[in-house]
Amino acid sequence: LTTSTTRRQSSEVRKAEIARIAAQLFASNGYHSTGMTELSEAVGLGRGALYYHIGSKEDLLYEISARHVREMVAFGEALADRQDLSPTQKLRQLSRELMRTISENLPELTVFFHEVRTLTGDRARKLIDLRDRFEHVWLRVIRQGVEARVFRELDPIAIKGLLGLHNYSYIWLTADGRLSPDEISDVFCDLLLNGYLSRVETSARSAGRNEVEWTDND
Amino acid sequence: LTTSTTRRQSSEVRKAEIARIAAQLFASNGYHSTGMTELSEAVGLGRGALYYHIGSKEDLLYEISARHVREMVAFGEALADRQDLSPTQKLRQLSRELMRTISENLPELTVFFHEVRTLTGDRARKLIDLRDRFEHVWLRVIRQGVEARVFRELDPIAIKGLLGLHNYSYIWLTADGRLSPDEISDVFCDLLLNGYLSRVETSARSAGRNEVEWTDND
Repeated sequence: LTTSTTRRQSSEVRKAEIARIAAQLFASNGYHSTGMTELSEAVGLGRGALYYHIGSKEDLLYEISARHVREMVAFGEALADRQDLSPTQKLRQLSRELMRTISENLPELTVFFHEVRTLTGDRARKLIDLRDRFEHVWLRVIRQGVEARVFRELDPIAIKGLLGLHNYSYIWLTADGRLSPDEISDVFCDLLLNGYLSRVETSARSAGRNEVEWTDND
Repeated sequence: LTTSTTRRQSSEVRKAEIARIAAQLFASNGYHSTGMTELSEAVGLGRGALYYHIGSKEDLLYEISARHVREMVAFGEALADRQDLSPTQKLRQLSRELMRTISENLPELTVFFHEVRTLTGDRARKLIDLRDRFEHVWLRVIRQGVEARVFRELDPIAIKGLLGLHNYSYIWLTADGRLSPDEISDVFCDLLLNGYLSRVETSARSAGRNEVEWTDND
């Protein structure tokens, strides 16, 4: 390794450490409430050195918010293109990737969800664009399933629902939870694919009845 | 009306106005970033008069966060007790109530989701208790459905998923959206009850196959 490569790598490592500590502060106290003095103390750098690593405070917010969404978009767009997987398999893989990402990067994803409207100008547009591309990946996979007659066609607002079902976990996920992110994803996919109604009910529906009749003595 | 009743009512109205304005400020800028000076300017009251109406800043945060959850708990517990509705009907009513509440009280619900960990001591416990009771209402309705063999039994983590599917809408709901809260709820319930898999797929499953086979030429 040349000295400049080593220096660049160590600078990347330092930057990643700063981003992690900043994400924790932003997630607990809010972006606006976290001062640069507080951050420079938390990372053990003077303000000059801190700005050298991060650019501006808003650059840092953008980097924290965008990084994992960018990675999920790359993962998802490659997945959606694949011909060797069924739409169901793609849905399951997207779901697992999302649950793993949220679970392994809770402070960063909390910052993304809470501060997505805090960014301004070009950074705001780029982040919204990334978010839309990720949503579009799910929409594509669902459409592939509809075209293959594996999935039913639902109003596209259902995509917001299935994303929310996963995303909202940033609020309740804990590191010591009973289930792993993969196990949670499996339950969620079972719900999203098969629904709550039992097969008894399903056959009733197939026979043309919309809902089970309900009587007081049931 | 007696003078004191009128005065009490007008004080309640004033308090509600303050809570609405505070919710908007807390939702946009964060609770910690909103100063009492800023709030007193926004509501057009001196700090003394403001504190007279709200108690402390944390009292105000609690009232904003708790009010709608408290109302949904009351609605949900009464609903879960009813014998004349099927579990499916109860699920649909819970879903509509939640979507309406979020949609009509976006700033308040944003504050609830973002600041649920900001409260301390007794207020924190009371708010968490309300949130748990609301979650328990959904769990009860699902259990009623399982007992009646209308719903399948899924791991209880699915409740977090179906709550998240609704709750996350605080991030994307807009007043001028294409669908009304009730219409969104109907799509969500269709997804939650019936799942994405088409009936063709459903019959394949009933016949013992777990997933559609997928080949490159599909």
